[in-house]
Amino acid sequence: MAEFSPGLEGVVAAETAVSEVDGAKGRLIYRGGYLIEDLAPVASYEEVAYLLWHGELPTKTQLDALRHQMAPARHLNDAARGALEAGDPATNPMDILRTVASAQGSTKTLTKPTLEEAIALTSVFPTIVAAAFRRSQRKDIVEPRDDLGHAANLLWMMDGKEPSADRTRWLESYLVLLADHGLNASTFTARVIASTGSDLTSCVVGAIGALKGPAHGGATFAVRTMLDKIGSADNAERWLTDAHVRKERFSGFGHRVYRTYDPRATIFREMAKTAAPELHRTAARTEEVALQILHEAHPERPNATNVDYWAAVVLTGADIPKELFTCLFATSRVSGWTAHVLEALQDLRIIRPASVWIGPEPGKKPLPLAKR
Amino acid sequence: MAEFSPGLEGVVAAETAVSEVDGAKGRLIYRGGYLIEDLAPVASYEEVAYLLWHGELPTKTQLDALRHQMAPARHLNDAARGALEAGDPATNPMDILRTVASAQGSTKTLTKPTLEEAIALTSVFPTIVAAAFRRSQRKDIVEPRDDLGHAANLLWMMDGKEPSADRTRWLESYLVLLADHGLNASTFTARVIASTGSDLTSCVVGAIGALKGPAHGGATFAVRTMLDKIGSADNAERWLTDAHVRKERFSGFGHRVYRTYDPRATIFREMAKTAAPELHRTAARTEEVALQILHEAHPERPNATNVDYWAAVVLTGADIPKELFTCLFATSRVSGWTAHVLEALQDLRIIRPASVWIGPEPGKKPLPLAKR
Repeated sequence: MAEFSPGLEGVVAAETAVSEVDGAKGRLIYRGGYLIEDLAPVASYEEVAYLLWHGELPTKTQLDALRHQMAPARHLNDAARGALEAGDPATNPMDILRTVASAQGSTKTLTKPTLEEAIALTSVFPTIVAAAFRRSQRKDIVEPRDDLGHAANLLWMMDGKEPSADRTRWLESYLVLLADHGLNASTFTARVIASTGSDLTSCVVGAIGALKGPAHGGATFAVRTMLDKIGSADNAERWLTDAHVRKERFSGFGHRVYRTYDPRATIFREMAKTAAPELHRTAARTEEVALQILHEAHPERPNATNVDYWAAVVLTGADIPKELFTCLFATSRVSGWTAHVLEALQDLRIIRPASVWIGPEPGKKPLPLAKR
Repeated sequence: MAEFSPGLEGVVAAETAVSEVDGAKGRLIYRGGYLIEDLAPVASYEEVAYLLWHGELPTKTQLDALRHQMAPARHLNDAARGALEAGDPATNPMDILRTVASAQGSTKTLTKPTLEEAIALTSVFPTIVAAAFRRSQRKDIVEPRDDLGHAANLLWMMDGKEPSADRTRWLESYLVLLADHGLNASTFTARVIASTGSDLTSCVVGAIGALKGPAHGGATFAVRTMLDKIGSADNAERWLTDAHVRKERFSGFGHRVYRTYDPRATIFREMAKTAAPELHRTAARTEEVALQILHEAHPERPNATNVDYWAAVVLTGADIPKELFTCLFATSRVSGWTAHVLEALQDLRIIRPASVWIGPEPGKKPLPLAKR
């Protein structure tokens, strides 16, 4: 029996060709051997999803076929619409996504995960997220449009008006950059669920739940909340110093795997200059001071800025309300989750680790049960 | 970096005092150090749930307080009822449970898991399962009754009539025996989701998805389906021999941890004699022949009968339709799932294992992107 490794740090739980986080070199490799910095400026989300599912980038014909398959799958079915409309409009949008995706993907009998289901679930996420947003604003739901790409259609359904080229481009880059990231906690959740022979919707719904946590997908929201509190570049030093004294954690710093600057953070940081110039200034000064404080407090730790930090600034520039940040993360990552599940199917073995018993040894003791 | 251990076999992923599967000695220990064979004949499900949550069995006063807390929590809220009624009545009941539990537990803001939520979720599972069953039969939903225990109320809501003492007792034993079982795949799923700081409903909904798989909670259904095909004790030898030639897996044999007879299977086997005498005969003969064939084919493997095998017979005796078997498993295990999450909260660290890259090394290759 191996030693107890809290958080399974360093424990290899899968072999994968979907993506690789090379923490030492600060590289993120997508399926087929593409570096994230090469894909991000040029690839659409649909192209990257195709890459993660198939292992190669699509030809023009293959991409058109995928778009034609995704467009009709954007619509909610009756079960999903009913589940959506029965909920309180003020419900946490991640809870809405969890419930409505579960309803949308329900079937009569247990089926093995398929690529068609992966495409269908990925297609419908923007519809659920936009509908949750519209309802929270007490506005009518806007139906999806077949003629728009994945990113543009999401903005269309949120606002009911043609999105600008800039916003679409920033959102597209966001969706590409977050689409996969090795064996992160939500992807691992999806693979554990898949390992029992369960269906794809169950895997994706479980992954949504894992992503929701502030130590995972919820971090972008936390960063934006922190930057809102700081308010301006001038206030960064005072706020961070005070927060450090209060032992408050700085959001957006540190990562289990990266020992260098996250390559996605580099891209977002650059993009943020044009997407959100004002917030970029605040964030840049905050980053500078935060890294200084963290390095002084923990010189042994690699305190590099993580992706959530600069992603929060770019999403703000793309006019995404912070309440939707985690949902946007899920909207991107669902292609990675499903790609991992489809890969795991090739050699299914139930993921069932061991535990160490820290309770008392059993003895023949009387049972203090209540008399009935 | 450790070696790759497929299925995380032998990897210790948690320290726990909730339950211990002692595979070598064939013991299942529940929290506080109670052996399952001591609890099963005398404890109610509510007492066992209290034990898993609190670490000790309740006094009469504590048990009464728990019952008073559980009774009102049996009712579906508006979000859950809407999600339930929007679904096709022929939907897989595990999918209904996943969706409706998700709706029932939705909140406006992210909250840390609490004991109150654990009690509420555990209380409402029978209501969802019974409602799914009634709808599948095109019958009106039966509202929960405050004056009945957990097991009796479930049967009441399924049938709309007073359950017999026998059925109630068999179901109660089933719920007690399945309530927890170390770091099984669904419990591990719940702990992975909890590790990100997510909420209790997300943990439970993910666990439902993991339990659904035929290599986990779906196994009881598979056993009953196999026994239905075999039909009678006389037919067992012929059927199993043919199935073995077809390389069909026998359902209900083998377990990751037990190297001896599963102690729960021993209890169910005995109970099945009175709960389902006819099916018991078929199952006993099937077991005898199956173990013989398996031992001859794989003398090195411990091919002991697992809990799913005899649980299927007892559930049949309690008149539970096989389509609900996995839901019943979830109805029992939810107390264990929630107890594990509450325990994990005491020392939260994100569960984020490593993976091994088996894809190509990145190179400066041209991106074959479609022209736009």
